[in-house]
Amino acid sequence: MRLTPRDNRFFELLTQAATNLVTGAKLLSELVAAPPGERGPIAARMHEIENAGDDVTHEIMLTLNTSFITPFDRQDIGILAARLDDVLDEMDEAADLAVLYQIGDFPPGVEKLVELLCRAADLTAGAMPGLRKVTELAPFWREANSIEDEADGVYRRLLAYLFNNGADPLTVLKTKEVIDRLESAADSFEHVADVVQTIAVKES
Amino acid sequence: MRLTPRDNRFFELLTQAATNLVTGAKLLSELVAAPPGERGPIAARMHEIENAGDDVTHEIMLTLNTSFITPFDRQDIGILAARLDDVLDEMDEAADLAVLYQIGDFPPGVEKLVELLCRAADLTAGAMPGLRKVTELAPFWREANSIEDEADGVYRRLLAYLFNNGADPLTVLKTKEVIDRLESAADSFEHVADVVQTIAVKES
Amino acid sequence: MRLTPRDNRFFELLTQAATNLVTGAKLLSELVAAPPGERGPIAARMHEIENAGDDVTHEIMLTLNTSFITPFDRQDIGILAARLDDVLDEMDEAADLAVLYQIGDFPPGVEKLVELLCRAADLTAGAMPGLRKVTELAPFWREANSIEDEADGVYRRLLAYLFNNGADPLTVLKTKEVIDRLESAADSFEHVADVVQTIAVKES
Repeated sequence: MRLTPRDNRFFELLTQAATNLVTGAKLLSELVAAPPGERGPIAARMHEIENAGDDVTHEIMLTLNTSFITPFDRQDIGILAARLDDVLDEMDEAADLAVLYQIGDFPPGVEKLVELLCRAADLTAGAMPGLRKVTELAPFWREANSIEDEADGVYRRLLAYLFNNGADPLTVLKTKEVIDRLESAADSFEHVADVVQTIAVKES
Repeated sequence: MRLTPRDNRFFELLTQAATNLVTGAKLLSELVAAPPGERGPIAARMHEIENAGDDVTHEIMLTLNTSFITPFDRQDIGILAARLDDVLDEMDEAADLAVLYQIGDFPPGVEKLVELLCRAADLTAGAMPGLRKVTELAPFWREANSIEDEADGVYRRLLAYLFNNGADPLTVLKTKEVIDRLESAADSFEHVADVVQTIAVKES
Repeated sequence: MRLTPRDNRFFELLTQAATNLVTGAKLLSELVAAPPGERGPIAARMHEIENAGDDVTHEIMLTLNTSFITPFDRQDIGILAARLDDVLDEMDEAADLAVLYQIGDFPPGVEKLVELLCRAADLTAGAMPGLRKVTELAPFWREANSIEDEADGVYRRLLAYLFNNGADPLTVLKTKEVIDRLESAADSFEHVADVVQTIAVKES
C-alpha cells in the first residue's frame, strides 16, 4: 500500500494537534507552580494554544471533506481529531477556571496529576507519526491506559486530601472544579488511544 | 436520488423531535423568570413534553427496524434521534431539580444561558427539514458550535459569580446542579450538530 | 448461519463479564449495609473483581484482533465489552470513594439505588447468552431502560434529601460523589443495552 501526499498531510496535521497538547501540558505545569496572582498570563497563552488547536482541527475536517485517504476510514480520522481537540479543551478550561474562580494554593498532588498529563502528551505526540503502521501502536495504547490508571489514583487521593483537611466548603468546591478538568484531560488522552486501537482492530 | 414516503416520515419525525426542543426551551425561560413558588406547574408541563419526546424517539426507532432509508445509514438516524432526545432529557432534569431542590433566586446570567438554549432549539428545528440535502447544512453546525461556545462562556461566568458572591455552600451546590443541566443541554445541542456533520462527511 | 467455536468463546467471555457485574452489585449491597468501619475489606474484594473484569475485557480485545466472528461486526463486540467494563469501573470507584472519603451513614434511599443495580446486573447477565439471537433481545433493552428511569428518579430524590436535611456541606459533597458513581453505574447498564439494540438494528 502506497501513501499519497494527501495522506501524509493528515499525519502531519494530527501530529501538529498532538504537539499542541505537549505545549498545553507544559503550560499547566507552569500554572500550578505559579503564585495565584501570576496565573492570568499563563491561562491567556493556553487560550491561544487552544485557538491554534481549533484551527488544526478545522483544517483536518475541511480536508476530510475533499479527500480519499489511504488506508483509513475517513470518519476515524475525524473522530481522532475530535478526541485530540477534547484534550486541549479540558486543559484550557482547567486554566481558565483556576483564574476565574480565584483558586489559591492547590492541594499537594496536583503537580503529580499535571506531570502525568505531560507524559501522556509526549506519548501521544510520539505516536501520531506511527499511525502509518497503526497495528504496531499497541505499546502506545497500553501505556496511555496505564497513565490514565495512575492519574485516576492520584485524582482520588487528591480529592480525599481536599475533603478531609479542613478547607472551607466553597474552596473545596472551586478547587474540585479545576482538578476535575485535569482528570477529564487524562481521560480524554485515553479516549485518543481508544480511537487508535479501534482503527488498528479494523486494520488487523 | 428519489426520496420515498418512508424517508419523508423520518424527516417529519426528526423535525417533530426538534420542535419539542423549542417548546422545552421556552418552558425553561418561563421557569427561570417565575417566582420559586410558581415553578412546579411549569416543570410538570416540561415533563409532559419530555414524555411526548420519548414517544417520538420510540416511533423513530421502531420505524428504523422495518425500513430502508434513502440516502442515510440507518444507524445514523438512530443516533440523531438519540442525541435530540438527550437535549430534552437535560431540559427536563434542570426543571425537575429546580423544583425538587427548592432553588430560590437564580444568579444573574441564567436567563442568558436559557436564551442561548432557545436560539439553539430554533436553529435545530429549522435545520431538520434540510437533512434532505445534508451537505448544505454546514451553516447549521457552524452556528450550533458558535452558540455552544457562547453558552460555555456564560456558564463559567455564572459559576464564578455563584462561587464568589457569598451564597452559602449548600445553596451554591444545589444551584450548580441545575445550571450544570442547562450547560449539558447546550452541549447536547452541539452533539446533535456533530452527528449531522458526520452524516454530511459520509455523503460528501 | 452457523456459529463457530470461536464465536461461542465470545459469548462465554461476554457472559463472564456480565457475571462479574452481578458479583459487583452484590458487594455494593454489602457495602452500603455495613457499618462505616467495616467497608474497607468489601471495597478490597470489589477491586479484585474489577481486576478480574479487566482481564476478561483484555482477553476479548486480544481475541478480536485474531478472529473472524459470525455474525457480528467485530467493532461492536469491542464496544460491548468496553461498556460492560465501564459498569464495573463505576462500581469499583463508588466502593473505593466510600472508604477513601470516610463516608459515614448513607442517606435513606441508597440501598434502593443499589438494589436497582443488582436487578440491572441480573438482567444483563441473563441477556448475554441471548446475543446469539440478538433481534429477540428487545425485552432486555426495554427492561434495562425502565430500570435506568427508576434509578434516575431514586437518585434525584436521594440528592434532594441529602441537600435539604441539614448535613454539613462537605459531608453532602463527599456523599454525593459516591452516589454519583452509583447513578453512573445505572447509566452504564443502559449504555450496554443501547449497544445491544444497535447491533440488533444492524441485524434486522
